[in-house]
Order: sequence, then structure tokens, then C-alpha cells
Amino acid sequence: MSTTDAVKRLLLGRPVHSDRLAETLLPKRIAVPVFASDALSSVAYAPDEILLTLAIAGATAYVLSPWVAVAVVVVLVVVVSSYRQNVHAYPSGGGDYEVVTTNLGRTGGVAVGSALLVDYVLTVAVSISSASQYATSALPALRDHEVLVAVLLIAVLTSINLRGVRESGTAFAVPTYLFIAAVLGMAGFGLLRLALGDLPPAPSAQLELVPEHGWEAGLTGLAGGFLVLRAFSSGCAALTGVEAISNGVPAFRKPKSRNAATTLALLALMSSTMLLGIIALSIATGVQFAERPAEQLLRDGVPVGDDYVQDPVIGQIARSVFDGFPPAFYLVAAATGVILVLAANTAFNGFPVLGSILARDGLLPRQLHTRGDRLAFSNGIVALAAAAVVLVVAFDAEVTRLIQLYIVGVFISFTMSQTGMVRHWTRHLATEADPAARARMRRSRVINAVGLVMTGTVLVIVLLTKFSRGAWITLVAMAVLFVLMQGIRRHYDGVARELALEDGPSGRVLPSQVHAVVLISKLHKPALRALAYARASRPSVLEALTVEVDPEETARLRAQWDERGLPVPLKTLASPYREVTRPVVDYVRGLRTESPRDLVVVYIPEYVVGHWWEQLLHNQSALRLKGRLHFTPGVVVASVPWQLTSSAGAEDRWEGAAPGDVRQGTPAARPGADSGARAGS
Amino acid sequence: MSTTDAVKRLLLGRPVHSDRLAETLLPKRIAVPVFASDALSSVAYAPDEILLTLAIAGATAYVLSPWVAVAVVVVLVVVVSSYRQNVHAYPSGGGDYEVVTTNLGRTGGVAVGSALLVDYVLTVAVSISSASQYATSALPALRDHEVLVAVLLIAVLTSINLRGVRESGTAFAVPTYLFIAAVLGMAGFGLLRLALGDLPPAPSAQLELVPEHGWEAGLTGLAGGFLVLRAFSSGCAALTGVEAISNGVPAFRKPKSRNAATTLALLALMSSTMLLGIIALSIATGVQFAERPAEQLLRDGVPVGDDYVQDPVIGQIARSVFDGFPPAFYLVAAATGVILVLAANTAFNGFPVLGSILARDGLLPRQLHTRGDRLAFSNGIVALAAAAVVLVVAFDAEVTRLIQLYIVGVFISFTMSQTGMVRHWTRHLATEADPAARARMRRSRVINAVGLVMTGTVLVIVLLTKFSRGAWITLVAMAVLFVLMQGIRRHYDGVARELALEDGPSGRVLPSQVHAVVLISKLHKPALRALAYARASRPSVLEALTVEVDPEETARLRAQWDERGLPVPLKTLASPYREVTRPVVDYVRGLRTESPRDLVVVYIPEYVVGHWWEQLLHNQSALRLKGRLHFTPGVVVASVPWQLTSSAGAEDRWEGAAPGDVRQGTPAARPGADSGARAGS
Repeated sequence: MSTTDAVKRLLLGRPVHSDRLAETLLPKRIAVPVFASDALSSVAYAPDEILLTLAIAGATAYVLSPWVAVAVVVVLVVVVSSYRQNVHAYPSGGGDYEVVTTNLGRTGGVAVGSALLVDYVLTVAVSISSASQYATSALPALRDHEVLVAVLLIAVLTSINLRGVRESGTAFAVPTYLFIAAVLGMAGFGLLRLALGDLPPAPSAQLELVPEHGWEAGLTGLAGGFLVLRAFSSGCAALTGVEAISNGVPAFRKPKSRNAATTLALLALMSSTMLLGIIALSIATGVQFAERPAEQLLRDGVPVGDDYVQDPVIGQIARSVFDGFPPAFYLVAAATGVILVLAANTAFNGFPVLGSILARDGLLPRQLHTRGDRLAFSNGIVALAAAAVVLVVAFDAEVTRLIQLYIVGVFISFTMSQTGMVRHWTRHLATEADPAARARMRRSRVINAVGLVMTGTVLVIVLLTKFSRGAWITLVAMAVLFVLMQGIRRHYDGVARELALEDGPSGRVLPSQVHAVVLISKLHKPALRALAYARASRPSVLEALTVEVDPEETARLRAQWDERGLPVPLKTLASPYREVTRPVVDYVRGLRTESPRDLVVVYIPEYVVGHWWEQLLHNQSALRLKGRLHFTPGVVVASVPWQLTSSAGAEDRWEGAAPGDVRQGTPAARPGADSGARAGS
Repeated sequence: MSTTDAVKRLLLGRPVHSDRLAETLLPKRIAVPVFASDALSSVAYAPDEILLTLAIAGATAYVLSPWVAVAVVVVLVVVVSSYRQNVHAYPSGGGDYEVVTTNLGRTGGVAVGSALLVDYVLTVAVSISSASQYATSALPALRDHEVLVAVLLIAVLTSINLRGVRESGTAFAVPTYLFIAAVLGMAGFGLLRLALGDLPPAPSAQLELVPEHGWEAGLTGLAGGFLVLRAFSSGCAALTGVEAISNGVPAFRKPKSRNAATTLALLALMSSTMLLGIIALSIATGVQFAERPAEQLLRDGVPVGDDYVQDPVIGQIARSVFDGFPPAFYLVAAATGVILVLAANTAFNGFPVLGSILARDGLLPRQLHTRGDRLAFSNGIVALAAAAVVLVVAFDAEVTRLIQLYIVGVFISFTMSQTGMVRHWTRHLATEADPAARARMRRSRVINAVGLVMTGTVLVIVLLTKFSRGAWITLVAMAVLFVLMQGIRRHYDGVARELALEDGPSGRVLPSQVHAVVLISKLHKPALRALAYARASRPSVLEALTVEVDPEETARLRAQWDERGLPVPLKTLASPYREVTRPVVDYVRGLRTESPRDLVVVYIPEYVVGHWWEQLLHNQSALRLKGRLHFTPGVVVASVPWQLTSSAGAEDRWEGAAPGDVRQGTPAARPGADSGARAGS
């Protein structure tokens, strides 16, 4: 095994055989953690965002936090109810992209596709930044290295996903249930202690929160209302990830749609409970949470300064609820960190799958489509990781700043998806005759219409409150992707039109003669092989061709040629300026002009070498010549490879990795919906 | 014309036609400036280096500067006398590399080749850094931007050379004669004013030069001697560029060698006069010149500080000699700056030529050899510019620090070249019978032996005094190049052995049958063309092959196939994991195993597109498949290109530039010495 191999093995793991690929269907108890981790994990940062936005107007504004949380829960319930209609109507797992493309046409589909691609990137950036915050809150040694921790976490995820590790359901189930148990347990125990009058205040309760300049009067007037709306927008981060389940329907056990819908309902119940519980306890323990704690929080009238470590809200509550028992705090922090990483991992699964679907529809380069191709998935994984790292570094791994970019994309796809669903029911109502079915459809349409109004309203609020705070970046990124994908599709459509067969016997006329030309530079084994192969194909005309760069050398070649009695005429092309490509191309074009109905086959001997640096030392002229000849119609270039000994065993090295090595990545296990990115297309 | 074309036109100029290539022979009055600019330009920095090294021991050490200069002139005269023998013995212009390879064998040649490659890079770095110093001295606005100015100058030279501008002799002649006239005129006028007792002191004469710590006693003891040797080593920078003339012999008018020898003598005369004149005037005008003027120079007992601008020595003398007439100062500075840039340009001509010679001998990738290939030259130019920029940036465009790296390489090639010449005469004396010729040879051998002793001694002094000050970097770079070139040569030798024909009728056995396989993904025009071409070559077996990625699509393809009544069987390969490459490769290998004496020809329809980004959208599967099939012996891959309309006119765009576009660059006009890097090699 070469060093390169060894390094690759270490980083990517041993090649996975195709026959390990199987579609395992998930029981609900596994499906919930697999698909719900993304949505559940958002309660790790949503409450924080609500509190720190309200904190701008000072501690008195916190009294509104339960109402903001309730508003978020209402939206969550409406969105989940709507998506329950989606999973029944579109059980194939195409998700929002399929719903929108089917009902609103390709342009809508491209728009929602752009939004989803951007969302995947932000899911990774936000979840990992938040995980990094939890890590530094539990391990003070990591403090001030949040960006480094986040980048390392992304690197680990990238490596795991490139290795093609198949996440077992269990790997998801244990940490997700642990997280649910930890947060709900903490909430229950905290509320119990509150009822007993025994709940100690949070460590930050003794601090004084100063409102920002201009907010000394608290939440008043239009500005106050706007700030509450901002807090609500930020709180809607709790909804991110809900759509994941609608992508995963095919992986559920039968009845797939019903089980998926039940899972959605369970998710809504748990998310709401956790969110409300955390907000309630944050008020009960007096948590003070600010965007810039060093300046906004005072201890004895003096700002706490840069040394102050602000734990996330869940962490602060855990410290207070389990005040005599630190291990419980670490358990909560660890469970939260792990579920955030799992949420990011969901994006690593979903992004290449979405890319593959978009590629199938000609919106991304077609080679991304081939599912069986590890390389395509690797490209997707690396692209996602790179984009997420850029965001994490650019925004200093600060969750609050990243959140501003995140929610707008999520609500664009929610809104478009609900519009599509309303359209869906209207279309089906036009043809459905059965009264019972019509009644069900009408009911579903009402639900989706309510969802549309709700998500549309939230989208407007989000755009108003977030646009200048970062949402414009998301919109620009989406617009760029939109234009790019439309352009790619236009290109593919144009090519398809250009290549389409006319009716009639086109293409059945054969060239009248085959004129074979064998390029010879030296008389060595590859040259003789090329000559033998050309002769074996019995062309009408066969000649060998050499370019005279140095007359002496040509004379030597000619002497050897005669000596061996090779039964093929050797033609010499003059090249006064010692170049090779042009004389050959000119000669071949001349042949074509003389007899346009002939086929010219140019045989080029090529060396096959084992290392990339050997490639640099050979075949450069052949490569350039092939590139030029490709532009001449009626010319076929036949490469006659000669395998040098160094090429033995190098085949897999060239390929990068054994193909047929597919990670399952649960949402990837989608049947149907595949056409070929194949040789020549 | 596309935008890309327009930009390329702007940067690279319009393609030059081959027929503009002609060997113009140079009269001496043009040859001197063309080949001597490099050597002459070194008086722009050599005196400065002598003075600032002596300045370490304080102003009293300056009394030794004339003696150091005289020593440098002695070495110069000896080296020039030796090289006059070189140009007589090796009129072909191969220079030191040819002399050493012929007389000391390949290993020596590789060593001297490494030294010369490194020297070219340092010529650019040193000359341009010095030019940048002159520019900032004349234009104070550029101060503190020396690195930027130097990098921009390199960029301009790179662009000019990539454009393939053919420098006319006149373009060299005017500034070179202007420089000679300016410096000699200044020296003459200055000495006249000195004789008249009317020479004003230099602006820096009023400053006090403090010796460095430990040198308060001036030049005493061993350390003093060592410092004088260091000054001498630095002064030997005046010799750089002498070897350029021996590369240029073929470009001289007849009698070539004699004219070249006369030019060498003229060069020695002018260089020595200028060097001695400058040193004499520097003493007469009391120039104070230090490496770190801000600290080493005092005005009224206080260091002058960072605001002090230290003009180069030539500039200080010009200010003093032409004290009432500033334009003369600017003329001298401008002429010096321009000749330094011309010197750098010499390296831009010489570097690709040397690369081509080394490639001819299999020491560098063979494609660098093809002279007619603009791309090869471009690679050389860009490599040289990049390496020079790295040095300029790393050493802050400080001439003094770069000089430490420069001289060692120059004297390594001087010494090796003289060793080779001594060997040359000894070899020829062994066979020569004519007494007159023997006498001439003996005389030449004595001259070269003196040259060898002299350059060898200087090399030892340079190594002793410069090693730890930067010369080690040069030695490391040379060693790396040496190992690299030996490795490349070993590789080419190994391949040549592997490919050599055995005696007897090898390679004359033809494959028994031709089995043609046409890959089909869709039934479109390219597919039908590939099918038609395959049929035209009348193989023994012909079949079409498709990979079933999606059963529906395969069924559709099969239906179309039957409908059109295509007279070729269509075979379907199963691909349960939806990948394309592996089933095809496995199938082809299976064919080979069944009938090992058959030839398998795989026809792949390919799209030819006009833009690189279109390339990304197509042919990726075809590319990978071709890569894999190359490793299978007995398989020929025939690309059947289909030119999409977007490819029209794109051919030249793909190629980067019209080929056959050769810059002449005077030393490039070397006849003979060419063998082919041709298709398939």
C-alpha cells in the first residue's frame, strides 16, 4: 500500500462495498430521532435569541418573552399541521422542491431549490456555532477559540461523511432521546422546585441589565413593537428543521405517510414543551441574557467586562436547577452539543441528495446526479463544508449574527411550499368526484391555506426585521444560485434541442471510406502497437505520419522503418518552426477537404503512467493534439494506450476511490427519480 | 471577438505569425548593448555593496575601497580573458552548460544547469530591486513602496515577454549607450572638476558614519581581513552577466567568435572604467553609504533616523558632480534604472532557452523543449517571474540581502565552466599534431587554468563570507533542482528502455479480430454518428452498449432503437447502484479475457463545447471512463466528437494562443540542437 493510499485510508476509511447498500425502513421510535434532531436542536438557541433581542430594551422587556414564545409555538403548530398534509400528498420524499415544482412550475422549483441549498449551509453554520458555544461554556479552556472549535467540528463531520460511515438509527436515537430526557427532565424538576419555592436564582440574576442607548424607557411606541417582532422573528428559529421529516417519508415503515404525520405531531409537542419550559424557567430563575454581555450587564453598577462568560440559557437554567449537582449541568450541555452536531450532520446528508435531484432536473451539472458515484457526493459534502466554514469564520461563529441569515430562507421555502399545497388541492378538487374525498381535500386545503397565511406573514415580518441585519446576504446568495441554475438548465435544453434526431433515416449514411493515420514520433513499442491496431481495423487508406522537427532524427526514423520492412507508408510533415500540433491538424483538415465523405481516424500512441507527476512528463503533445482535432468534424481520435510498468496497480489511485461506494444517509434512500448521467452525456 | 479574446489581446498582444521569425545577425555596435546590458548594469549596485560592507568598520575603512575595486577589476579581466577562449571553442552558444556537459559529463552539466537556472531568477530579483531603488531615489513619492514598484516592474516585463514582443536591437542600444555615456560622462566631468579643485562634496559627506558595535578600532586583525574579503565578494557582483555573451555567439555577424571576443574585451574595458571611476569619485566626494543608514549615519551626533533617504552611490555622485543642474541627476538615475530593467529582461530571454536545452536533454519535462510552442515559453516566463517575485517580497526588495544569494551561483558556473575548458584543451591537445595549433591550445589552456584558479579562489571566498548570510539558500535551491532534474532524466531513461524494440519482428502480429463497442446513453445525433463511424470501420463484431441506470429510460431507448431499425444489437448492462464506469470497464475486461487476442475498440460519443464552463457540464463520465479504460491493455478508446454550435470559433480559445508564435529573443535563435517532443512522446 502506498503512502497516498495509507493517508487516504486513514482519512476516508476503507472502501465500502456496494452490496452493503440496503434500504432499511425505520420504526417510529428510530425515525423520530433521525429526522427530528434538526428541528429539536433549535430549542438550543431559539430561546436565547428571544431573550437577547428583548434585552435591548432592558430587563423589563423580559415579561413579554412568554408571549413571544407562545406566538412561536402557534406558528409551529400551524406549520406542522400544514406539513402533515404535505406528507400525505407527497409521500415520495421530494420535499418542498417536489411540491413547488409540481404545483408552481419550474421557476418556483428553482427558487425553492436555491432557498433549500442556502438553508443547508446555514443549518451547518448555525448548529455548529451553537455547539461550539455549548462546548466553550462547559469547558472554559476553549474560550475565545469558538471559531476554531466550530471549524474543527465541521472538519470532523466532513471527514465522517466522506468516509461514508452509515449512521445507524441508534447512533441518532441515543443522543436525541438523551437530549429530550435532559431538557424535559430539567424543565420538570425546575418547575417542581419552583412550586416548592426552592428554585435558586440563576448566576446571572444578580446582574443588572442596562437597556441600550435610546431604550431607557423600555418597550414603548412603534420601536417597541418592532423590537418585539424582531424577537419573534428570531424565536422562529425554533421552526427550522421541521421540513426534514417531509423529505424522509420513504424511510418510514408502512403506513409511511401516517407514521410520518404522527412523528410530525410528536415533534411539535416536544418542541413546544421544551421551548415554553425553557422560557418559563428563564423567567423564574431571573436569567439575564444579552447580545454583548460585557457592556450590557453590570455587577454592582460596573460593566462585567470581557472576562464574563455568558452561558447559553439552557446552561444557566441547568446550573440553577441542579445547583448542588454539577454533573447534571455537564450532562445537559453535552447532550445539547451532541444534538446540535447531529442536526448539522442531517444537512450533510440532505445537501448532496438535493443536489442530485436538482442535477436530475438539469439545474446543476449532470454528473452530480449519478447516485452510484461517490465522487458526486464527495463534491457536495466538500462544497457544503467549505461554504459553512466561510460563514462561520466570517461571522466569528456568533449564533446571533448567523440567525439573521438563517430564518429568511426557511420561511421562503415554507411559504412557497404551502402555496404549492393550496394549488395542489385546488387542482385535485377539480377532478375528484367522491364527496368524502372532496371533503378531506377541502379540509386539507383550509389547513394549508392557514399555513400559507401564517408563514407568509412571518416571512414578511422576518424580511422587515432582518433584511438589513443580514437577511440580504441570504437573498443575494439565493438569487445567484437561481440565475446559475436557470442558466445551466437553459444550456442543457439548448444542447438537447441541438442533438435531437430529426425524423427519417438521419445518421444512417455511412462514411464512404476510412482513412487511418497513425502518428509516429519514434519507433518504439507503443508506436508498433498503434500501427498493428490500425492495420487490424483494415481501413481503406492507412498511412503513418511523422512531424519533422529535426531532419537527422527523421532520417533515423525512416531508416529504422525501412529496416523493419513495415508495410505502411511513412509520410513526413515539414515543421520549419518545430511545432507539432499545427502541421498534423492542417494535414488532417486537408484530407477532410479533399474527400469530405471520408472518415479520418487518427491513431495516437499514449503512455499510461502510474503517478500524476509522470503524467506531467508525458502525453502533453498528445493531449493538445486531441484537443485540437476534436474541433474538426469527421475525425475520430483513437487513443492506443501503452501501459508502462509504473501503471500497474495505479488504476484505483487515479480514480480517487473505489466507485460504487454509496453512503446510505437515510434521506438518500429515495427510489425512482433517476435518469442517467452517462458516458457521452 | 469575445471578451476573453479581447482581454487576452490586451494582455498578450495579437498573435505573431511564424513567418516573421528570421535570424537577424547583429553587428557589434548592436551586439554590445544587447548582450552587455546585464554585465554593465551591475556597476549600478556593485560599488554600493563594496562601500556599505566596508562601512561596518567605519569611514576610515573606505580608504581600502579602491583596492577592493582593483581586485574586482583583476578578477573581471581574468574571467573575460577566459571567456574569450570559451567563445572560440564553443561558438554554438550553448554557454556554460554545453562546455561543462561536453567536458565534465552529465552530472556536471546538471549541476551547472541548476546554478544557471537559479542565477536567472536572481538576476531578475537583484536587477529589479536595484531599479526600484533608483526609481524611489529619483521619485520620493515612491518611497517605502520599493517592493510594490519591483513587483510591478516584474509584472510589466512578464507581460511584455508573454506578448512575444521582439526586442529590436535598437530598443537595447539606445538606453545602453545612454547609460555608458551618462556614467562615463559623469566620471569624466567629475574627475575634471576634481582636478580643477571645484568638486563639491556629496550631500552625505557632512554626515558622520559610526562603526558598528565592536568595530570602533577600524579594520584590524583577522576580523578586519574577513570584512575586506566580504567587501570583495560583494564587489564581484560586478562580474555577473559576463557569461551572457558566450550564449549569444550565434547571433553575431561573421567572424562570429572573433566579434564576440572583441565585444567581451570592450565590455571588460567599460565595466572596469566605470567601476573604478565610481569608486574614485565616491572617495573624492566623501560619499557615506551604510546598510542601515537610519542608525549608522549621524547628523550633528544624532542618528539621521528613518526619514533619511539614502541615494545609491551613482545618484549621490551625480548630485555632487552636477550640483547646479538637477536634470543631469535625473538623466543618470533614469538611464541606470532602464539598463537594470533591460538586464532583467535578458534573463527573461535566457531562462526559457536554457529550459528548452535542459528539456532536450531529458532533464526537464520534454514539452518545454518544443521551441515552436508558445506555451512552453510562457510556462518558463511565468515560472521565472513567480520565483523572482517570491524573492523580491521575501527580501523586501533589498539589494544587499539579495546580493548574498546571487554571487555564489555565478561563481559556481564560472568555476565549473573553466574546469571544463581546461579539460577541453587537454583533450584536444591529445589528438592535435600541428605545432602552431598546439601552441595556441596550450596558451588557451594556460589562460583558462588561470581563470579556474581565480574563479575557484573567489568561489571559496564567497562561500566563506556569504554562506550564513544567504548563500545557503542558493545552494539548497540548486540541490533541489539538481535532484529533480536527475530524477526526471532517470524516469525518461527508464521509459525509453521499457519501450525500446527488441530485435526481430515484434509488434508485427496483428490482433485476430476487432470487437467494436459503441457506448450509447441516449439516441441523439452524436450517438448515431458514433454508430455510423463504428460501422464504417467494419469490425468483426459490433455492438451498442448502454448502462441501465433507470429501467424506464432504458425501455424508452430500446423502443426508439427498434423503431429506427438500427442494424446493430443493443446490449444493456445492469447497474443496480446507478453508476456507469464500472459496469462498462468490467464488460470490456470480460471481452478481453474471453478472447485475449482480439482488439476491443470502444467508441465514445463526446460533445465539443466552446467554453470551459460548458466542459464542466458535459463529458465528465466519458472522461472518467476513458481514464479507466486506459489501464486495460488491448483496448483502444475512439472519441467521436460532436461539435456543438457553441464550439465554433472556440478552437483558438482552447489553445490559449495561436501556436507557431515564437519570440525570437536574440539568444533563442540557436540553430541545431533540437529533437522532438512530439505526439505520443
